[in-house]
Amino acid sequence: MFNQLGLIGCGLMGGSFALALKRAGLVKRVVGYSKSPSTTERARKLGVIDVVAESALLAVAGSDIVLIAVPVAASESTFKAIRHLVEPGVLFMDVGSTKREVVDAARRVLKDRVTSFVPAHPIAGKEVAGIDHADAQLYQGRQVILTPLPQTDAALVQKATDAWSAVGSQVLKMTPENHDAAFAAVSHLPHLLAFAFFGAVARQPAGRDFLSLAGPGFRDFTRIAASEPTVWRDILLSNREEVLKQSQRFRHALDALEHVMRSGNAEALEEMIRQASQDRADWQMNAPRHGGPR
Amino acid sequence: MFNQLGLIGCGLMGGSFALALKRAGLVKRVVGYSKSPSTTERARKLGVIDVVAESALLAVAGSDIVLIAVPVAASESTFKAIRHLVEPGVLFMDVGSTKREVVDAARRVLKDRVTSFVPAHPIAGKEVAGIDHADAQLYQGRQVILTPLPQTDAALVQKATDAWSAVGSQVLKMTPENHDAAFAAVSHLPHLLAFAFFGAVARQPAGRDFLSLAGPGFRDFTRIAASEPTVWRDILLSNREEVLKQSQRFRHALDALEHVMRSGNAEALEEMIRQASQDRADWQMNAPRHGGPR
Repeated sequence: MFNQLGLIGCGLMGGSFALALKRAGLVKRVVGYSKSPSTTERARKLGVIDVVAESALLAVAGSDIVLIAVPVAASESTFKAIRHLVEPGVLFMDVGSTKREVVDAARRVLKDRVTSFVPAHPIAGKEVAGIDHADAQLYQGRQVILTPLPQTDAALVQKATDAWSAVGSQVLKMTPENHDAAFAAVSHLPHLLAFAFFGAVARQPAGRDFLSLAGPGFRDFTRIAASEPTVWRDILLSNREEVLKQSQRFRHALDALEHVMRSGNAEALEEMIRQASQDRADWQMNAPRHGGPR
Repeated sequence: MFNQLGLIGCGLMGGSFALALKRAGLVKRVVGYSKSPSTTERARKLGVIDVVAESALLAVAGSDIVLIAVPVAASESTFKAIRHLVEPGVLFMDVGSTKREVVDAARRVLKDRVTSFVPAHPIAGKEVAGIDHADAQLYQGRQVILTPLPQTDAALVQKATDAWSAVGSQVLKMTPENHDAAFAAVSHLPHLLAFAFFGAVARQPAGRDFLSLAGPGFRDFTRIAASEPTVWRDILLSNREEVLKQSQRFRHALDALEHVMRSGNAEALEEMIRQASQDRADWQMNAPRHGGPR
C-alpha cells in the first residue's frame, strides 16, 4: 500500500504505528527522524525504523506517507522544517491529542499545501513513553479520530482511513473543535483532576501514611496521574480553554454534592450518587454508536 | 476456633466473611439475620449461612463471634437491638468504612459492654453489592484496620486479629480518628470526585457523544463512580468533616494547576505534573510499611 513511511518522532506513538504498518505488510521501508540521535539509533536497532534520517525534511524525502509523532507543542516547528517537501498526493498525519492548535499551525505554515495534511488522534497510549515501549498492537481495537478540514484532499482522508483500519483501529471523523471539546471532557480533565488529587494527598503532613492504606479504588482512580509530564503539559496548555470550561462544570457538580453533604440531606445525596452510579454502570467503552458523534 | 458466627446483615461484606471463615474451617455454624427475609433465605440457599435468625438479637444468642455488616447509618439501631446479649468474652465486630461515628454509637448504646466491640474496616469490596456476589476470597491479601478503644478487651482484639489473619488479611491498628482522616483522603474523596466528574460529563448537552469517545484512562478513573449509592451516601455523610477537609486540599491543588494553565507558565505546569506523576509512579499498593501509620 505504501512504499515508504517517513516517521518524524520515534517515540511510543510513532514507533507503534511503524511496527503496526510493517506487521500488516503495508509499508516497505521506514525512514525515521528524532531530535535525539540515540533515539533513532535505538529505533533502528529495535527494527522499528530501517533507515535513520538526519533531519525531519530528509525523513519526508521519498516518502508517500509521513507520520508526525512529536509533542503537540512541536507541531508548528515541524511543519516549518518540512514544508518544502509537502507535495500533493503524499499523506501527512499527526497523532496529537489536541487538534485545533495543530490544525491552526498547519494552516499557517503549510498554506495551500495544507490539503495534504490529515489530522489524526489515535485514542491509545501507555503510562510509559519512549521507543522501547513501542508495540505493534497499540492501535488494535482503538478509536482513531480524523479531523480533516473542508479543503483536505478526500483521497488522502480515504488513504488515512484505510491505513488506520488496517492496523485494527476504528476510524471516526469530526471537526477539530468538536474533537477538542469532547476530549477536554473525557480525557484532559480527568488527567488534570488526577494530577491535582494525587498531589494533594501525597503532599500533606500524613500523606505517606495515608498512601500506604490506599486500595484498588485509589489505584485505578489515580493510574493516569503517572502519565508523561511533558506530553500532558502540552495537551493541557494547547486545549486549556475547553479544559477550563469542563473543569467549571465539574466544580459545579462537586459544589452541589458538598452542599447536600453539609446540609445533611441524605435523600438528595443518594439521588445524586445514584444517577452517576447508574450512568457509569450503563456506560461501556467503545459501545456501538447511533448516528455517530456530532 | 469459633463455634457460632452470628451474622447481622447478609450482604457482600458479611456473606464473604462467613464464607471465608467456613472455608478456613474456623467456624462450625453461621446464624444469619437480614432486614429482608428474602435475603436471609437466599443466603441459606447459597450455603453462606446455616440457620436463619428472626431478629438481630437471635443471631447473637449462642454466638461466640458476631459480625455486624450493616450500612454505617444502621449501626446505632443494631447496637440497640442486640445490647442485652452483648456479653464479655464474645467478639463483636463491624465492617464499616468509617469508624468515629460507629465507635461513638457503640459507646453511647453499649456503655460498659463496649469492651466487647472491636471496630473493624476491611479494605475490600466490589462495585456490585448483595449476597449473590459474596466471595470467600474477598479478604484475601487485603488490609483490615482495627480501631479498638483504650477499654477494648485486649484478648478480643487478639481474637479479631487472628480471625482476619486466618482469612488472608493483613491486620493494622489505628485510632478511629486517624482512620477516618486517612480514608477520607484515599477512599472517600476519590469516590466523591468520581461521582461529581461522571455526573458533570454525562449531564451536559453533548454528554452522550462525549462518553462514546472515552478510552481506558476514563474507564479506570471513573470505575468507582459505579459504587453502591446507599453505601456511599452513608460514608460521605458519616465522615463529612474529614471528606470536606480533604476536598479543600484538592481544590487548592486544582486551583494552582489551573492558575499556571491560565498564565501559560509551561515550566511551572510541567513541574507540578512531574511531581504528581513521579509520586504516583513510585507508589505501590500494599507496599511494606516502615514503622506503621501514625
